[in-house]
Formats: sequence, structure tokens, C-alpha cells
Amino acid sequence: MGNCFEGCMSYCDRPKNTNIRWSLPAVCFVWETAMIILFGVFIRYDEESDAHWMEHRIAHNISSDIENDFYFRYPSFQDVHVMIFVGFGFLMTFLKRYSFSAVGFNFLIAAFGLQWALLMQGWFHSLDYTDGKIKIGVESLINADFCVAGCLIAYGAVLGKVSPVQLMVLTLFGITLFAVEEYIILNLIHARDAGGSMVIHTFGGYYGLSISWVLYRPNLEQSKRLHGSVYHSDVFAMIGTLFLWMFWPSFNSAITDHGDGQHRAAINTYLCLASCVLTTFAISSLFEKTGKVDMVHIQNSTLAGGVAAGTAAEFMLTPYGSLIVGFCCGIISTLGYLFLTPFMEKKLKIQDTCGIHNLHAMPGVLGGIVGAITAAAASETVYGELGLRNTFDFDGPFEDRIPTVQGGHQAAGICVAICFGVGGGTFVGFILKLPIWGDVADENCFDDEFYWEVPEEEESIPPILEYNNHMRVNKHSEICMAETNFSVEQS
Amino acid sequence: MGNCFEGCMSYCDRPKNTNIRWSLPAVCFVWETAMIILFGVFIRYDEESDAHWMEHRIAHNISSDIENDFYFRYPSFQDVHVMIFVGFGFLMTFLKRYSFSAVGFNFLIAAFGLQWALLMQGWFHSLDYTDGKIKIGVESLINADFCVAGCLIAYGAVLGKVSPVQLMVLTLFGITLFAVEEYIILNLIHARDAGGSMVIHTFGGYYGLSISWVLYRPNLEQSKRLHGSVYHSDVFAMIGTLFLWMFWPSFNSAITDHGDGQHRAAINTYLCLASCVLTTFAISSLFEKTGKVDMVHIQNSTLAGGVAAGTAAEFMLTPYGSLIVGFCCGIISTLGYLFLTPFMEKKLKIQDTCGIHNLHAMPGVLGGIVGAITAAAASETVYGELGLRNTFDFDGPFEDRIPTVQGGHQAAGICVAICFGVGGGTFVGFILKLPIWGDVADENCFDDEFYWEVPEEEESIPPILEYNNHMRVNKHSEICMAETNFSVEQS
Amino acid sequence: MGNCFEGCMSYCDRPKNTNIRWSLPAVCFVWETAMIILFGVFIRYDEESDAHWMEHRIAHNISSDIENDFYFRYPSFQDVHVMIFVGFGFLMTFLKRYSFSAVGFNFLIAAFGLQWALLMQGWFHSLDYTDGKIKIGVESLINADFCVAGCLIAYGAVLGKVSPVQLMVLTLFGITLFAVEEYIILNLIHARDAGGSMVIHTFGGYYGLSISWVLYRPNLEQSKRLHGSVYHSDVFAMIGTLFLWMFWPSFNSAITDHGDGQHRAAINTYLCLASCVLTTFAISSLFEKTGKVDMVHIQNSTLAGGVAAGTAAEFMLTPYGSLIVGFCCGIISTLGYLFLTPFMEKKLKIQDTCGIHNLHAMPGVLGGIVGAITAAAASETVYGELGLRNTFDFDGPFEDRIPTVQGGHQAAGICVAICFGVGGGTFVGFILKLPIWGDVADENCFDDEFYWEVPEEEESIPPILEYNNHMRVNKHSEICMAETNFSVEQS
Repeated sequence: MGNCFEGCMSYCDRPKNTNIRWSLPAVCFVWETAMIILFGVFIRYDEESDAHWMEHRIAHNISSDIENDFYFRYPSFQDVHVMIFVGFGFLMTFLKRYSFSAVGFNFLIAAFGLQWALLMQGWFHSLDYTDGKIKIGVESLINADFCVAGCLIAYGAVLGKVSPVQLMVLTLFGITLFAVEEYIILNLIHARDAGGSMVIHTFGGYYGLSISWVLYRPNLEQSKRLHGSVYHSDVFAMIGTLFLWMFWPSFNSAITDHGDGQHRAAINTYLCLASCVLTTFAISSLFEKTGKVDMVHIQNSTLAGGVAAGTAAEFMLTPYGSLIVGFCCGIISTLGYLFLTPFMEKKLKIQDTCGIHNLHAMPGVLGGIVGAITAAAASETVYGELGLRNTFDFDGPFEDRIPTVQGGHQAAGICVAICFGVGGGTFVGFILKLPIWGDVADENCFDDEFYWEVPEEEESIPPILEYNNHMRVNKHSEICMAETNFSVEQS
Repeated sequence: MGNCFEGCMSYCDRPKNTNIRWSLPAVCFVWETAMIILFGVFIRYDEESDAHWMEHRIAHNISSDIENDFYFRYPSFQDVHVMIFVGFGFLMTFLKRYSFSAVGFNFLIAAFGLQWALLMQGWFHSLDYTDGKIKIGVESLINADFCVAGCLIAYGAVLGKVSPVQLMVLTLFGITLFAVEEYIILNLIHARDAGGSMVIHTFGGYYGLSISWVLYRPNLEQSKRLHGSVYHSDVFAMIGTLFLWMFWPSFNSAITDHGDGQHRAAINTYLCLASCVLTTFAISSLFEKTGKVDMVHIQNSTLAGGVAAGTAAEFMLTPYGSLIVGFCCGIISTLGYLFLTPFMEKKLKIQDTCGIHNLHAMPGVLGGIVGAITAAAASETVYGELGLRNTFDFDGPFEDRIPTVQGGHQAAGICVAICFGVGGGTFVGFILKLPIWGDVADENCFDDEFYWEVPEEEESIPPILEYNNHMRVNKHSEICMAETNFSVEQS
Repeated sequence: MGNCFEGCMSYCDRPKNTNIRWSLPAVCFVWETAMIILFGVFIRYDEESDAHWMEHRIAHNISSDIENDFYFRYPSFQDVHVMIFVGFGFLMTFLKRYSFSAVGFNFLIAAFGLQWALLMQGWFHSLDYTDGKIKIGVESLINADFCVAGCLIAYGAVLGKVSPVQLMVLTLFGITLFAVEEYIILNLIHARDAGGSMVIHTFGGYYGLSISWVLYRPNLEQSKRLHGSVYHSDVFAMIGTLFLWMFWPSFNSAITDHGDGQHRAAINTYLCLASCVLTTFAISSLFEKTGKVDMVHIQNSTLAGGVAAGTAAEFMLTPYGSLIVGFCCGIISTLGYLFLTPFMEKKLKIQDTCGIHNLHAMPGVLGGIVGAITAAAASETVYGELGLRNTFDFDGPFEDRIPTVQGGHQAAGICVAICFGVGGGTFVGFILKLPIWGDVADENCFDDEFYWEVPEEEESIPPILEYNNHMRVNKHSEICMAETNFSVEQS
């Protein structure tokens, strides 16, 4: 493995060419055309979004339009949508000169990913065998957004080090792997994972970390000057953090059961997140000499509670149980930023730009474990007979499954997610090492300059009066340039 | 025409005075007072927001409070509200020194416009002839926001070149024209236009462009130094872009039929927008030497899909049909930014600051055409008998209309929207040319300085220790000033 | 009183130590642990979020899951949640170097406060006496967010002058006082206050102002260099303003009656806010020499309408009544910023960083008065018999209360809110004067530096080419430093 790795690395170590003038448009056009063809062949409206709804309503004796699934899920869908595009996008704007790429490429790959996810998830979950079509509705849109989240998490690990073309490839494979993994965990193993602690976060986290491991950049410290934040970029990142934090209850409750399922998932997540904020502040302050808080922790570790509440959110986790999960998560995640990320970079050669291991991978595994324990401890006393069956979907072929067995299957789900993440990520990583994708050299990482037309920086806007008097020297940079020339002449 | 235009221009070419100390307060106070009086005379709660609702519910045998229209539409209303104030407002913050005006005047005219829109639309659509009152509910609020959108689009064309008083006038006339045009298109022609491709975007676009044509500023390049973005202003603009993009499915579905109508409109718009993002990136990258992407395109053209899906969103456009519309729109809109905007500025003397022709006018017309075709192609096989009648509202006097005829009427709607836009815009443009509105001179465009108290720029905040030691020279600008003086003394 | 005040001040005037390395983590850990224990003892799911919901539904003959309170309130809850975290947080980012603290400490205290609020409000309002447990659902979450708002308002008065530990103490006492005050006003006096004009805004405002009065800093002008905004920080603050403004209709309607109650509250607030924007612009422009508008007013006074509509929003305020309230509020609030804030600082020794007196306290009192008048003027003609009973909750022990009496009780509510605010704030202020909380010295106010690891400011990012050629002089500041040295050598 090591040999192969070394061999491939030397093969791939050619001078970098960041020209993506043909590759990016080609990928976008060809893949979008493929989407159109596949959608034309496979995708149709489901009965709740089709114009025949009224007939369906009458036939099924549905009393009101308000019972259309749209009204149960649309508000949650929009919240999830905001998390995907503003939440993930702005969370990654913290780098001083990579905000365009953070928010822009996040936009690009999410927009592509959700189309591919509708197809992949449709084939696995909602293919109608009578006519061979996939029927989509608002729940499909939410699931597509969820699926995309896995790839955006992976983007966090390689942020600043890959080209948009690589990101598109990462997304194509990521969505594909996700759909298979999700099918195995949810349908074959029949684990429950409403908020995707395992399916989304564990998978997405290890997928990204494995890619980052394969794409290790030994000379990354040459980009050190850009590998940090400025004051305003940290404030921008807080927009992402807060929208993720606020809407996470919607994320975890978006596809749970109507009624108490959605209600309970929202409450649990809300509490878990609140508790997580306090321990994050505590640990962040505790490990700095004078107790100063670090923005990196606040931007990220406060969210770990939402990740960890993902699996168990719809269970009877109890309000205090939610607080305990958040309490632990804030501690673990912040300690991860303090000690584990530097360790991983130095010893394991895993460069994790956004620290997704602390925000998604670890809390995701923790969330899976919490889910397994909560499921194993479920009882008819707590849930009621009907409630137990509904919550764990003990129906059809799984009618006779008991909570302890369910707990075991939940645990199995974690393993599947990790395996798919690590295996898939390593595989995709080697594909991305091919020297054809237009990625930047080690010394040019974290710089928008190579893929974006960046506006010239005018630090101070010249005041209008002086400008009109044609005192051209009032432009700050020009003054200093003039000064430089002047001093050169002097010496 | 040319003569009249020249004559008027010379008449209006007096030195500019940007003092709006009396005109702005006067306009605000007088118009708001007029609103209060008119609201007092005309506007009342409708039966779903009136305290008699419970009696109404019992009388009409409505089984639950959840069937109040509020619960069908309020989440969509709030999304539309965000688009109007944050979406449009922040989209225009891209200029380096015009963010205050972008977001602030957007706020002012939207807040005025929605009141006037409630009245104008009320007179045309929801006047109760039994008591002469307008009855408002949540759907009226959405429609008022829609109406305002037309004027905010027009603001995009003249951004940076007009005074707030001019904007208020633009809004007053814009809303009035909008209500008439909307009445003709929706009620007389009986075209369908759920997301307002024609009614809002085509009208708003040509209204703004016509105004900008009349207000042509020949010496605008004297403001060139401020006619561009800086790094952070582009990131701010992305906030606007993303909130518009994410909530566009709510925009197009906000006032469609309960049930499948809202559901389908959301799905179509979601897909159309996703597809549009990919072709925007592709074209933007294709036309730059090394494949760099241009922020202007990403901020704007990615949204064209939402505009173009406006009319047909509630029809059975099919998922792949939506993707195709988005595909085309991304291409057309981005090419518009690359070639059409410079052409229009040079040859047609239309200065379009935000490129609304590419984002609203063209995609709006395209959306109208897509709507006409989709309507003409509708059949009972696809919609079902009930579905066809509901979707196209073939009821009352329009009971016998058939889809092909509807298609023709849809096309007529586009023409009406363009005529109202161009005609109304030209008329309002000449009013705005009067030298009494406090607009800036050509060399002072795109500058907040004239209408806002702008904070002094301290580029670097002096560190506290040095400041306290009274080392005044640590202030960056002062150093350089000192240097300048010094070098002058030397020479 | 004056003596005591002076004495305490001198006692507390020791040199300041901002090291919070032990106090902040201790407070966070201990209080969060206490929350977990108390939640474990007291808090359970209510019947709509419990897994027994399905059995409850069948037993109570509820026809559909959509009648779960979750679907009535969750969209409003999420809007309120955004107001608390993004709205309040970003509104306070206007200071040039206090954005981290504004948005970060807002996050911290809100996350703690909502947990404590669930307990405090639970004990007073939703304690189930059969089993001694508090049952929570989505309405509890909204109420907890409301409760937190009171403390965040108070934060606005002391922004930049207190440590995070002080803020935690302020929140602990604030929530406690709030719950008692709310119990007295809503349950004992039986006043109605849907949007919390009295309960939240009047209380929160005077609570914060009283604390600020006790914590008066005589030498605050030494921090003057940081006591203002820069261009981009004002734009960030507009994010807060707009999200507050847009979602205020959800705030005022979140916990009103299902059906017409929520519907009407949203409409009234929407109109009141729109009207307020116009008079704010008018007054702001009127009082500047050339009619320039001041961002401070736009950021704050435009919101006063939402505060003032709080109590009466659910009443039959009528649309034009709402406009009138907004009209007055915009004027009063803006005049407050222009004249009252400087007066209060100079004469009353109350330093009010964000001007919460103009945004919350005054409009809150005004809102209470409007509520009292509207309640007193209520009649069966306007509300209908059923409507009157539902709107004012004339039920149980209050069955025989008549509108005029209700008006008197509403007025009593205002007094209670003011008393609790002033009394509680003064008490808490003296606690916060103890020299153990790690607050900054007068000359170090408004500076993130003391509680946050602030990134070094690189004004211009060096272009990559020059950097790689090791031309170190291209760093702007270094050039100027070199220049400075050079010029010194010359002289």
C-alpha cells in the first residue's frame, strides 16, 4: 500500500496547471446533459405533486389539501436548503482569501449533487416497479439535500487544495457511494438514522479525510500566509455557523414521522445544541493562557451537538439525555481541534482544513453509538406499543425485531458508514491524484486567485474632492509606490 | 423623439444638488399619511384574519383551524419576504461603496411599496363590492411583496445613479403600473403567471431599463473608480444571491393552488435553478482565458432559472423540462453579461448597473414563452379532467377555453408586460429627469457619501498599547501623509 | 442611595484583570451540569411530542397528525430562533472591533438562557401537578426564546463594557426575574401580551438600562477610538436588522391563538413595521444638514414598530391602526437616538451602547399603552361574542371581565414590567460591580482583543508572484514601516 502510494505520488508530481477553461465547462455541460436525459427517462412527479392529486385525494378519502405531505415537510425542507447553501457555504468562508471558492464551489457541487442524488436515491428507494419510474415529492428533495451534505462535509477536509473539477468528481462518486451505503444501512440492516449521524456525517467525514490523506501535500506550509482568517472573514463564517445551528432541529426532524416524530426530533436537537455551546466555550477558554476564546471552536464545535443528536433525535432520548449528549460533544469536539487536528496533520499526514474530523466524523460516530444505546434500551413502557412500532418501523419483514436486536443493528450501521467512507475516499483520492484536474501547487493553496476573477483591492477609496482635483497621488498604494521609488532614488 | 429627448436633456442639465433634507422627509411623511387615510377608508381584515373567524369556521363547516389559509401560505410568505429585503437588498451590495444605499434604499422603497401595493392590488382584485372595502389576508401580503419585487428589479438598473426621492417616485408609479398590467394579464386576458415571469420580471426589467435609457449619463465613466466590487462586497452580494436562489421555490409556489399546485411549483423551480447553476459556471469559465469564473455571473445568472420557471412552475412542466429550461437560461443569461450588457451600454445608451436585462428581462420573456408552450400542450391525459380545470382555472367565464387558446393568451400576456414596462418606464424616466430630485452628478455616482453618513475609514485599528502611549504616528494613513509631506519638502 | 452608590463604586475600583480562564469555564460547566440535573428531575415531553401521541390522538379523536401543535407553530418558532441568534447577534456587530463578542457572546448567553428559561417558565406555567413534571413542546421552545430576548436586549445596553462571565450572571438573574414578572402580568393580572411589548421589551430595556446605570464608566471616552462603526461592520449589522424586521410578524404571532389570532397578529405587525421605516428615514434625514441618512437610525428605529405592535398585534387593531402605531414609533425612536441618548449619557449617567431605550424600552411602553387602549375599546360588535372571549381569554376565573377592566389591567402590566426592570436591573448591577468578573478597564472597552483570539490583520494579501520571489517588501505595512525608519534616519 505504502509503495503503491509512493509510486502514484511521484507519477502525479508534475508541474501544476490550473487552467480549467475546457475541463470545467466540459464537465458541467456533459453531466448536466446526462442529467436531463436520465431525468427524462426516469423521473416523474409523485401522486402528491401530480395534477391528478385531486382525484387521488377523493379516491383515498383525504379530507383536506393540508394533508398533502408538502405542508408537513416544506418548512423543514427550506431550513435544510438554507443549511446546505448558506450554512455549509459560509461556514467555509473563514479563510482570508478563499471565500469566493468556499461559497461558490459549495454552490456548484451542491446544485449538481442534488440532481444526481435524486436519481441515485430514487433508483434505490422510490423506483416504482410498475412503470419503472422514480416518483419525486418534497421528501425526495430533502433527501437529495441530505445526500449532498455528505459531499459538502468532504469538501471541508480538502478546502483550498483542490480544483472545482476535482470537486465535481468528488461529488459524483460521493453521491453514488452515499446512495449505496444508505441503502445498506437503512434498508438492508434496517437501522434508523433520521438526522444522518452515521449515514451523512460519519460517512462524509471519513470520505473527506481519506481523500485528504491520499492527496497529502507535503509542502503545504508554503501557503501558510493564506491559511488563516481575517477579522471580517471570521464574521462571515459565523453566518454559516448560526444558520446551521439554528436550523439543525429542522435537519434532524425533516424526514421523521409525522406528528410526534418530527416534534420530538426538533426538541431533542434544540436542547443538544444549546448544551453543546456551553461546553465549547468552556473548553476553548480553559486551554488558552488568559482564557480567551477561539473563533475556530465557536464556529465549529458548537455544531457537534446537532451531529450527535442525529440518530437518536426521533427516539425517546429524553430532554436531559439530549443535554448530556451535547455536553460531551462540545468537550470532545473542542479537544479535537486543540489536540487531534495537529496530531493528525503531523503524524497521520491528514490535512483537514476545516477540522471535519472534530465536527462531523467523531460526533457522527458518537451519535451512532448514542442511537444504538437508546434503541437497545427502548421499551413498551416508554414508547407505548404503537409508539415503539412506529418509531422503529417494526413492520413487514422486521415485525418481530426487538429493541436490543435493533441496537445491535444500529451499531452495525456505524461500521458500514466508516467502511464506505474510508474505502470510498481512498479510491476517489487516487482518482483525484491524476494530474489532469487542474489543481494548484502546494504554495498556491487557499487562494481564490486561480479560479476566480478577484477584484483589485483598493484599500482606501479616494475621497471625491481630491480625486476631482486630479491629485492622483491620493490613492494609497500609489503614494507608497511613489515613496518606494523615491527612497530607492535616495539610496 | 430624438429632438424632444435632446431638448429635455439640456433643460435638465443643471448643476446637481444632492441636498434632500426637505424632499425626502416630505415625501415620506406625506405619502405615509396618505397611506394611513386610504387604509382607514378601504382596508379591513378578511374573514380568515378577522376575529369572527371562529363563527365563519362553524358556519362553513371547516373542521380545523389548520385549514385557515395562514397555514398554507405563511411559510412561503416569510421566504418571499426574505427574498425581497435580504435577497434583493444584499444582491446589490456588490459595489465597493454603495452597500448602504443598496440595502437601505431597497428597504425604504420596499416598505413603502408594499403598502401602496396592498391598496392598488386591493382595488383591482379584492374589493368587496358589498361594503366597498378591501379585505386582506396572508395572500394579499404575498402579492404586495411580489408587486414590490417589480420595482426592486427596476432599482437594479439605475443602482448608484439616482436619489432616494427618485426611487420613491419610481416605486409609486411602478406599483401603479404593475397593478394595472397585472389586472389586464391575469384577469382580462386570463393568463396564468404564478411566479410572475411576465407580470413581475418582464415588466420590472423593461421598466427599469427604459428609465435607465432616459436617464442616460454620458459621463458615467468618471465614476469608474467606484463602479466595481471589492473582495468583501462580493461576499456580501453572495448572501443576497443565495437567499434568492434558495427561496425561489417558495416564490413561485407561494400563491399557486393548495395541494399539488404548490408542491409541483416548488419542485419545478428547485430543479430549474439547480440546472441553471451548472451552465452558468460553464459559460463563465469558458469565456475567460484561463477558465477563471466571474463572480458577477455566479451572483446573477444562477438565478435566471427561477425567473424562467415562473410562469410554468405550476404546470406539468415535468422534472426534465425544468432542467432544460434552467440549462438554457444559465447560458443565455451569462452570455448576456458577457456580450449584451456592454453592447447595450455602448450602442443603445442603456446603462444597466446590475445587468437586470440578463437576470430578469430576458429570462422573464423566456419564462413567458415556456409558459405559453406548456399551456398550449396541456391535455387531459396529463392533467386529468379535474387537474386541467384547476391548474388553468377554466372556470366561470373561461369554462370553455381550451389549452391551445390558453397558450395564445399566455403569449399575449408577454406583450402586455413588455409594453407596460417600456411605455411606463419611458414616461417615468422623463419625470425623473426633472432637476428637482436631488440626484448626483455623473462623477459622483456609486457613492454612498452623498446620502449617508459614512463612518470614517480607519484602515488599521491602532493597537491599544501604542495608542495609550500617544504614539500618534501608528495610524497608517497619517504615516503616509507624513511621508508625503516629507517627500514634498525634500523636493 | 447616592452615598451607597459612591461607596460601592470606590470599593469596586480596583485595577481590572480580564483573565477569565477559570471563571468562564467554571460557570459554563457548573451551570450546565445543574441544568442536566434539573432537566432530569423535572422536564419531560408533552403529549404531542411523546411517543404516546398516536394513542393520545385516537383517544381524543384528533383526525390527523397535521393538528399536532408542531405544524401550527414550528415555522414561526424557526423565525423567532433566527431573530434571537442572527437578528440580535448581528444587530450588535456594528462596532468596528466588537463583532466577535457581539455575535459570540449573544450565542453563549442565548444558549444558556433558553435552558434556564425552560425550567423557570415551566415551573410557573406548565408544571403538571399530577406528577410534578414540566411538559415541554414547541410552544415551550418559543417561550424560552422569548425569555432569552429580554436578556439579549439588556446586553445591548452594556455591549462592549462587560465580560462574558458578567453576561452569564446577567442572564441567570434576567431569566429568573422575567419568569416571575411574566407570571404576574400574564397569569395574576391576566393581561394579554402576545408579542411581549411589556413582558419582553419594556422589562428587558429597563433591566439593561438600570444595569448600565450602576456600571457607569466615567472614563469611557478613553475607548472612543473603537466606539463607532466601519463600513463593513455597518453592513453586517444590517443583516441583523433585516432578519429582525422580516421575522417580527412571526415573533408577534408565534404564540397567539390558532387560526385568526396568528393570522391577524402577522398582518398587524407587517403593516406597523412598514410604516415605521418611512418615518425613520424621514426624521433621520430631517435632522442632518444636507439630509443624509444615519445608519444607526435605519439599523434600529425601523424595528421599533415591531416592538410597539407586540401587545396589540392579536387584537382588532385594524390595518390603519397598525400604520399609525408604526408612524409614531419611527418618529419617537429616531428622535430618541438624536436627543435622548446623548442626554441620558451626560445627565443621567446611563451609557446605552445600542440605544435600547429608543428601540425597546420606549416603544415597549408605547406598545403597552396601545394594547391597553385597544383592549379597553374592544366590543362584541367588532370581535363577535366568541371572538371577544377567545382573543382576551375571558375564561375560567376571568369569565366576567369586561374590555374596559381588561384595559386597566393591561396598563397595570406596564407598571409591573417597568418595576421589575428597574428594580431587578439595579440589584443585578450591584452584583456585577464586584471586582471578580473579569471585565475590562474603561480604556479597553469595545475591543474583542481581551476575550477573543483575534486574527492578525494583514491589510493587503501579498500577491503570489512577488511573495514567491521573496520580495518581502511588498507587504504594505512593512513598506511604510521601512519608510518611517528611513525618514527618521534622514532627520
